[in-house]
Amino acid sequence: MARQFDQELDKLKKDLVHMAKLAEVAVGKSVDSVIVRDSDLAREVITDDINLNRLELAIDEHSLRLLALRQPLATDLRLITAALRITTELERIGDQAVNIAERALELNSSPPVDLPIDLKAMAEMALDMVRTSIQAFVQQDPRLAIQVCHRDVEIDILDDEYIQKLLSEMIKESRWVVRLHHFIIIVRNLERIADLATNIAEDIVFIVEGRVIKHRCEEWMSTPPLT
Amino acid sequence: MARQFDQELDKLKKDLVHMAKLAEVAVGKSVDSVIVRDSDLAREVITDDINLNRLELAIDEHSLRLLALRQPLATDLRLITAALRITTELERIGDQAVNIAERALELNSSPPVDLPIDLKAMAEMALDMVRTSIQAFVQQDPRLAIQVCHRDVEIDILDDEYIQKLLSEMIKESRWVVRLHHFIIIVRNLERIADLATNIAEDIVFIVEGRVIKHRCEEWMSTPPLT
Repeated sequence: MARQFDQELDKLKKDLVHMAKLAEVAVGKSVDSVIVRDSDLAREVITDDINLNRLELAIDEHSLRLLALRQPLATDLRLITAALRITTELERIGDQAVNIAERALELNSSPPVDLPIDLKAMAEMALDMVRTSIQAFVQQDPRLAIQVCHRDVEIDILDDEYIQKLLSEMIKESRWVVRLHHFIIIVRNLERIADLATNIAEDIVFIVEGRVIKHRCEEWMSTPPLT
Repeated sequence: MARQFDQELDKLKKDLVHMAKLAEVAVGKSVDSVIVRDSDLAREVITDDINLNRLELAIDEHSLRLLALRQPLATDLRLITAALRITTELERIGDQAVNIAERALELNSSPPVDLPIDLKAMAEMALDMVRTSIQAFVQQDPRLAIQVCHRDVEIDILDDEYIQKLLSEMIKESRWVVRLHHFIIIVRNLERIADLATNIAEDIVFIVEGRVIKHRCEEWMSTPPLT
């Protein structure tokens, strides 16, 4: 009985890692669809989102079944209730990728603009946060999770800087306003992906240590990042 | 023992309603701080957000304790796990109110602009969705919840229309770009509040009927709205 429960928890973890991988791929493709102006790739992201939605529902159902039938305690209880939150965050990361892909479709139907920002670099930072939060989950390593919280501060600074640059460009070139606005939304989407990765990281500290670090930035910041 | 459990569930429901009320007040005040250009009110919203954060942590802790000690089944299990999600949504509604209040502080330090949109009307729609989702929760009425899903479609249309109008204004008056951008973000914040209210509504259908309506828009749309 106990062994079967362990197997079920393993399956839950594997499903979450699989879902995270799908979300990560969706974000990567959506940003590429903007940068290389590939509308087919954008449409692929939009179509594939249904897989993330289905997986969310399946994992949620599995988690609820485990809660009802196994009545877990301590770490297991925290893992299963956190799973219910993590699926929501991953599904929303997928939604952000869809939003970026939709902007790509709009942008690709107009001539390109000269961008004053490095979208690829920002996307890499956000993707790295998603990857690290999932690695923290797999390795059950709260230090990795706290690293994600630290990077969220960096991406917030980049977000401000990029929005200012895009607004300055809008003031200079009023015929580019609509296209630059699409890029502002994409920058915001990436910043939101970073936020969602941070939420996942917070959940992992909670699973492993039973410590709630939500709303306690000062506490994370006093924990030194990994070097 | 059973009676005590009922009392604990009652307390959980009351705490959620109280948290929802705080979130609703925060949104109302934040929008007023923009419309009547009241920076003191904006600062109040920012300071008071800590109460929402604290309540989220307290309700989450209570929910986890109920799961561990009472090992609930069926409706009770769904109620408690949904409570864990609803607190997250309410806390994020509070965050959106803080974002709006921060924009108010920026806007109030510059001269006013002529707005081509009715921000008050949009805020009323979003607030009404938050109120209805909580009423659906109190009355455990999935029909009210589905009404919220219907309204989300309306607010999405308004969101598109308002963003287009603000962008047109930006093209006409380049010296207003930065201020109009703040209003674009406020419109987006209101649209997000509506989304978060819709998530709560979906959770309520799940609590009452055990039916997952997430990602199933067609299904909601085939259920007629209340008149």
